[in-house]
Amino acid sequence: VKLDKARELFDAAVRRAEEIGAPSSIAVVDAGGHVVIKGRMEGAPLVTVRMCEDKAYTAASVEEPTADLLPEVQPGKELFGLFAAEAGRFIVFGGGVPLFDDDGALEGGLGVAGGTVDQDLAIADAALAAWSPA
Amino acid sequence: VKLDKARELFDAAVRRAEEIGAPSSIAVVDAGGHVVIKGRMEGAPLVTVRMCEDKAYTAASVEEPTADLLPEVQPGKELFGLFAAEAGRFIVFGGGVPLFDDDGALEGGLGVAGGTVDQDLAIADAALAAWSPA
Amino acid sequence: VKLDKARELFDAAVRRAEEIGAPSSIAVVDAGGHVVIKGRMEGAPLVTVRMCEDKAYTAASVEEPTADLLPEVQPGKELFGLFAAEAGRFIVFGGGVPLFDDDGALEGGLGVAGGTVDQDLAIADAALAAWSPA
Amino acid sequence: VKLDKARELFDAAVRRAEEIGAPSSIAVVDAGGHVVIKGRMEGAPLVTVRMCEDKAYTAASVEEPTADLLPEVQPGKELFGLFAAEAGRFIVFGGGVPLFDDDGALEGGLGVAGGTVDQDLAIADAALAAWSPA
Repeated sequence: VKLDKARELFDAAVRRAEEIGAPSSIAVVDAGGHVVIKGRMEGAPLVTVRMCEDKAYTAASVEEPTADLLPEVQPGKELFGLFAAEAGRFIVFGGGVPLFDDDGALEGGLGVAGGTVDQDLAIADAALAAWSPA
Repeated sequence: VKLDKARELFDAAVRRAEEIGAPSSIAVVDAGGHVVIKGRMEGAPLVTVRMCEDKAYTAASVEEPTADLLPEVQPGKELFGLFAAEAGRFIVFGGGVPLFDDDGALEGGLGVAGGTVDQDLAIADAALAAWSPA
Repeated sequence: VKLDKARELFDAAVRRAEEIGAPSSIAVVDAGGHVVIKGRMEGAPLVTVRMCEDKAYTAASVEEPTADLLPEVQPGKELFGLFAAEAGRFIVFGGGVPLFDDDGALEGGLGVAGGTVDQDLAIADAALAAWSPA
Repeated sequence: VKLDKARELFDAAVRRAEEIGAPSSIAVVDAGGHVVIKGRMEGAPLVTVRMCEDKAYTAASVEEPTADLLPEVQPGKELFGLFAAEAGRFIVFGGGVPLFDDDGALEGGLGVAGGTVDQDLAIADAALAAWSPA
């Protein structure tokens, strides 16, 4: 993900967050998990500054939406260990999504944190619309 | 495990991973849990770079396949405490196997991460075939 | 510093960086040292992702440009201890500047990393022009 | 850097290390600083397992050979702060080199640790010859 494109996702996320009144922090990372752009809206809780990046990192790292991970890391499930292994960065609730190119190769991840999980997901969807214009 | 032998296991694992279309990261560690060889195939998710090593470490550390550990670390079971104590490195699903010499002495561990657990196990088996030609 | 204003600084910095051909990472932090916006231009070295934020943090933290700090942290000088205490985040060469409001109250910090120190400073100046139109 | 090419560098480094009798650890990382291949020859000190990766990471991170960094991080010099900021991963003596493609874009880094600095550099040179056949 290059800065110009990441910036489009970021701006789209900010617009949606304003519309639904959910001040959020938003991050886009590259395929190596490193920040391309990250920002915090006024009113987004302090923890979201780190969490949005961790969500984006997690989604890029496992190439899955973070929303899918919670059931997989419960005791008795296969990824129970992974959650502990990546403790500190591995976020297992909604708001992080991987970004792929048209050939299915990983381009990076997007993370949104600030509102309820439903709000985070709505904001992430708005950003993804900027990623894949349909 | 010396580098030459570890390299044979690594190469055998890469070949099998290519055959089954499961880009993976593969690590071989010595009896001290330290990397002898580790690599990442193109397309293997980022998280696998660390996970393959953690699986190899875990298998060498407890001298058991990681696939056997999940039930043992549940609350109320004997290894529940160990899992917490080693959180961050202790992986409790399949893909890590210990390596023993002909006298049963620990030589190290092998870890595969990238595909489904079944794919990880199939790749680990291919590597083990290079370890113990039968 | 609110996101809208921070984006103006960020954009001004990116434009100058493009003009002088110095791909850079740029961060704006608030008075608490936390990221408001941060981004990496294509071609900016990996180390700059963290360094731009550390420069912004350092400038906000001591309310001085980081370019002024190098002599102050030498052995025998007053800030020698501070440098050690903050090791890991305290950057003592140019590219970080504090941001003040019209009453002289701290608003945050700006950090630029990517080119030579002279280039970093030129880019920071361009961003500051967006902060205080004169 | 893809695994196939990284293995060529790795193998070339191992051959040279054997020739000069300097058992070493060798790592190749991608542009994001993540391991593509890493291995330890028998007899390479334990510390080299981590150090080879840190050298490769450092070289990729700052896009300079690590051999050039030592003078720059001395007290009174500009990168004095950087060394502290990246403490734990930032290696400032020879053995790490960045890898660029034909257009000068970063492809990753190579790190060699095990012998004297002169030996590390000789081994790195042998690997680089595999990177850029001349």
